[in-house]
Amino acid sequence: MLGITLGDIGGIGPEVVFKSLIRLRNNLHKPTVIFGCHTIFSDQYYRDFLNQLAVKKTTLVEDLNASGIYLYECPVNSESFIKNRPDAINGKRALTYIQTAVSYIKKGTIKGLVTAPICKESLKLAGAPMTGHTTLLQSLSESKEVSMAFYTSELKTLLATIHIPLNSVAQTLTEELITTSIRHAHLFCLKLGITHPKIAVAGINPHASESGMFGNEEKEVIMPAIEACRSQGIEADGPFSPDTVFTRALKKEWDIVVSMYHDQGLIPIKLLAFHDAVNVTIGLPFVRTSPDHGTAFDIAYKNCAFPDSMIAAINLAETLLDAP
Amino acid sequence: MLGITLGDIGGIGPEVVFKSLIRLRNNLHKPTVIFGCHTIFSDQYYRDFLNQLAVKKTTLVEDLNASGIYLYECPVNSESFIKNRPDAINGKRALTYIQTAVSYIKKGTIKGLVTAPICKESLKLAGAPMTGHTTLLQSLSESKEVSMAFYTSELKTLLATIHIPLNSVAQTLTEELITTSIRHAHLFCLKLGITHPKIAVAGINPHASESGMFGNEEKEVIMPAIEACRSQGIEADGPFSPDTVFTRALKKEWDIVVSMYHDQGLIPIKLLAFHDAVNVTIGLPFVRTSPDHGTAFDIAYKNCAFPDSMIAAINLAETLLDAP
Repeated sequence: MLGITLGDIGGIGPEVVFKSLIRLRNNLHKPTVIFGCHTIFSDQYYRDFLNQLAVKKTTLVEDLNASGIYLYECPVNSESFIKNRPDAINGKRALTYIQTAVSYIKKGTIKGLVTAPICKESLKLAGAPMTGHTTLLQSLSESKEVSMAFYTSELKTLLATIHIPLNSVAQTLTEELITTSIRHAHLFCLKLGITHPKIAVAGINPHASESGMFGNEEKEVIMPAIEACRSQGIEADGPFSPDTVFTRALKKEWDIVVSMYHDQGLIPIKLLAFHDAVNVTIGLPFVRTSPDHGTAFDIAYKNCAFPDSMIAAINLAETLLDAP
Repeated sequence: MLGITLGDIGGIGPEVVFKSLIRLRNNLHKPTVIFGCHTIFSDQYYRDFLNQLAVKKTTLVEDLNASGIYLYECPVNSESFIKNRPDAINGKRALTYIQTAVSYIKKGTIKGLVTAPICKESLKLAGAPMTGHTTLLQSLSESKEVSMAFYTSELKTLLATIHIPLNSVAQTLTEELITTSIRHAHLFCLKLGITHPKIAVAGINPHASESGMFGNEEKEVIMPAIEACRSQGIEADGPFSPDTVFTRALKKEWDIVVSMYHDQGLIPIKLLAFHDAVNVTIGLPFVRTSPDHGTAFDIAYKNCAFPDSMIAAINLAETLLDAP
């Protein structure tokens, strides 16, 4: 069974979820449960979408064997919510949806989760302990090591570090962290059905430092991690020059690129697939995907948000759930 | 008059220069002088190319008013050179070609220079004072501030920092350096014929730090530089999230992006234009372009190098020479 959380309901999350399910409803092979609350399910803006979807309410007490789309109403203690901007009420709701979904994951009812975008500021206003999906889900599921990866049909990448200052990247990268990242990239490829994954590891410095001319991280940190993975039978290679490794990966030299920092991996992903890249968390005890865009408060409730990335996220979650 | 230096003659430099000129010869509007030496001009590998080109030798004593392609034989003190690998002899030659070309630039005979790729290791073996074109040309022409920019038909970017470790980027970026970079980006656009250039400045941190959540360089260093330039009438804006600014620039929101570091700018450039991006130096007292690839020793002397980037570099040099 697949769960979908609506994210920050001030943004485009609910709209792209409903639009995606309208597009996909005849091809969904698993029961799909939307985690929201009664105020959003009864908001006039969404009435048409929900009528088209012919959704059923659920409490997940019963066994949902039949494929179909279900609404799960999480308990909330306010009747209203705020549209088009960050707010504590929205942050509290987003957190509740995630916590409820994870509780059903722990019970084994839900196997995979697709999350609509949340807002760091709303969550902060709501006093949430973390403000990002990856760290929240890691904490709620008590997972030791998780990695953020991005999927497009043309290019896949996994990030060794994410939301930290550029100035902290070099000191944050350790042999252990890069080894975990390479192993997670390998695991991700296996789940995608690639039986012998070929992995490229990017350098951190210009031209991967040209043998130490501008930096020593390639030799001292990245190379030992690659060697450790190779000794475990993982086909990893590098470190490669960051400015050409993605073009080479596009030409199928490798199945995935391990990026050392956020923008190294995200610049090529966003350039190649602005509307349909998918964010995937590797290392959780369940499947988790999400669109790679944010809440887009400015265009919410105007019926103009593209559901492409959410559609790709739902499709990828189904693929990963079917993996052996 | 346009000068072209052959670069490291162990690599693909001479081949892509000759192939480009064969392709362009009927459209060259200026006398074009190739700076090389007699050993390369008489090497059997290049005989066919040079016969096709119908080149004339020159000593640049006479006034080359007629358009046409000329060979300038720089004095060299060895009869041989090494193919397909870095070598001190090749490094010495590459340096001689550049020094000779710059001497004619200083005399006013040559107005623009296109440089074929050199090899940092060959130049190091030859005892050259610098091992990159940009710094060499800056020093030879006694220019105070120069910037490296990249041109493709779809995307232009200028780099605030280049070949330094990623770990040094934050400390190297100063308000003064970024101000110069924005001014150079503005100048570059003007020379390209863009009368009211719109300039995007990238942040350095993920999501441009989301108001200081991961780093303070956006607020403390980049923003003051943007404001300083705006007060001088330059239409600069930002700092923008590095992972979306290039996609937005592709959609013509701006004419050029000022990148904070090498791979931030080069990843999108190489992804969009692997074969025909052009490297441009801004801030020299003359026009200078070059292809954005290296010496490619492994494929040299096999007649398989693509001249696309060199052709684009020669075309762009001609465009910039015609600028008011």
